[in-house]
Amino acid sequence: MASEFDLIRRHFTRAPHHTDLAVGDDAALLAPRPGMQLVVSTDMLVAGTHFLADAEPESLGWKALAVNLSDLAAMGAEPRWAVLALALPSADEAWIADLARGFFACAAAFKVDLAGGDTTRGALNLCPTVFGEVPTGQALLRSGARPGDDLWISGQPGRAALGLAHLRRETSLAAAREDCLLALHRPQPRVELGLALRGLASAMLDVSDGLLGDLGHILACSGVGAVVDEAALPLAPLLATGADPALVRRCLLAGGDDYELLFTAPPAGRDQLEALGRSLCLPLHRIGQITDQATTLLLRDTHGRYSPVAAVGYDHFR
Amino acid sequence: MASEFDLIRRHFTRAPHHTDLAVGDDAALLAPRPGMQLVVSTDMLVAGTHFLADAEPESLGWKALAVNLSDLAAMGAEPRWAVLALALPSADEAWIADLARGFFACAAAFKVDLAGGDTTRGALNLCPTVFGEVPTGQALLRSGARPGDDLWISGQPGRAALGLAHLRRETSLAAAREDCLLALHRPQPRVELGLALRGLASAMLDVSDGLLGDLGHILACSGVGAVVDEAALPLAPLLATGADPALVRRCLLAGGDDYELLFTAPPAGRDQLEALGRSLCLPLHRIGQITDQATTLLLRDTHGRYSPVAAVGYDHFR
Repeated sequence: MASEFDLIRRHFTRAPHHTDLAVGDDAALLAPRPGMQLVVSTDMLVAGTHFLADAEPESLGWKALAVNLSDLAAMGAEPRWAVLALALPSADEAWIADLARGFFACAAAFKVDLAGGDTTRGALNLCPTVFGEVPTGQALLRSGARPGDDLWISGQPGRAALGLAHLRRETSLAAAREDCLLALHRPQPRVELGLALRGLASAMLDVSDGLLGDLGHILACSGVGAVVDEAALPLAPLLATGADPALVRRCLLAGGDDYELLFTAPPAGRDQLEALGRSLCLPLHRIGQITDQATTLLLRDTHGRYSPVAAVGYDHFR
Repeated sequence: MASEFDLIRRHFTRAPHHTDLAVGDDAALLAPRPGMQLVVSTDMLVAGTHFLADAEPESLGWKALAVNLSDLAAMGAEPRWAVLALALPSADEAWIADLARGFFACAAAFKVDLAGGDTTRGALNLCPTVFGEVPTGQALLRSGARPGDDLWISGQPGRAALGLAHLRRETSLAAAREDCLLALHRPQPRVELGLALRGLASAMLDVSDGLLGDLGHILACSGVGAVVDEAALPLAPLLATGADPALVRRCLLAGGDDYELLFTAPPAGRDQLEALGRSLCLPLHRIGQITDQATTLLLRDTHGRYSPVAAVGYDHFR
């Protein structure tokens, strides 16, 4: 059986591109570029909570890094480095090699150096910590939304949740199956969009716990309210899957694991944002507006009627 | 039952001292000072592997941060920030409050800001990532040992392993029990020593996997050999515990969880190092010498006889 040190050396060593000292010493050495703030995030992925115990390791490696990079994207940061702590129940080398392949595919796609890590025996647990850079003062926070700002969402939220519903046999997807499972297993952090929104968006976060629940964080941090316009939600593509409309609506508004960017921006930026969406081939949907009614979240239905929403996101302890 | 967000807010928020944006957004913002490299390390602590499942949470919180800070100390870095990812089997608030108290006691002792984190449900797992600073180019690596350098160890290695042996009823400690259990449960990262050794030591690491095994990493990274002089080892204080001499010797040479610093330095620095040990009230033991016999590790016994050592550290998968 290969030793811990051999496994790490064999599968988790790649030539770093912008790291002063990477895997192999007590710690890694790296240096943000002058004028940059370091942006740091950590998200732990646990078997049974974030993925099924028999999850395919290559996708799991991709996703573990991708969901962390999504947090950097949500700050308008450029991803640069990652460290990866891993607990594994056994040293199954083929499994580890697949995991590393997926992890490094994501790292290469977003120009991230693996700078260090830790491997130990334990219940399966993947804990990347990621580091990005943003010009000092330009990070996009949750606290910047102002009354009158538009509310935007990128891409097609709800696909990952619909994919999970399919795996749980709560629905049966036909043609849309691949697309929804891809969204679930290989999420694309919206890094390019996040960078382009510096100076355009006023507040931003990534939708990992559900659109309405995450919107609640913007409202709380900014001290504002919001109206979400049902008619503007990108429901049609999900309804075209043939899934039950109530399930579709729940997946879009409250489904987790989406990693789309939810952001606010002054109305003056509408043309520029629509052009940006076209240039990135990523639809940007204007789904509502920020109000001065602190933390009040209203849904406006297709008949123009308003109903209040108790902002509920995914809570690991409920 | 308190929600995940409430628990984090209640127990894991402290006013940061040198963090631009801490807990509460998608990511944290921080900035190393000009002329500094960032030093990054992550060590995951898993129930059953690194601590007993019924471990006292306040000590566990201290230890989780302390063992990570030890990696920074081993680079000669000044600790500055930490993020903490946690998997918990349940939201036991009293337990979490105790854990946080121990974690922040260590953070306060070493002037570390908690800049962010993640909490999730899962098998108990604590994964801090820590960040320190070192003036560019001054980090103490494993690769800097040169033939003729002295080999030094700080403090009293072996106490933590002896404490663990006591808990496992492999020995019974009398008067030394408290001292050994303190070393096991509340290790002191040698931060001040690490800082003082910049410019004095040529190579360094912390002894977390056993003195001889960790020495093997210096030999491999530096391409040198070493002779360890048994007569110079600080065995007497451990023997005074009354424990079996063979166990004592094994704890000192191969016990894990010690977090003392093992370093090399040119002989010209001896007086300065002895003075340093006195000023820090931390004995520094000169226990051997670096040789040009690449990766050969020899023990010299009290009769002057040499015997080779297969460098064996703790391997989580063996």
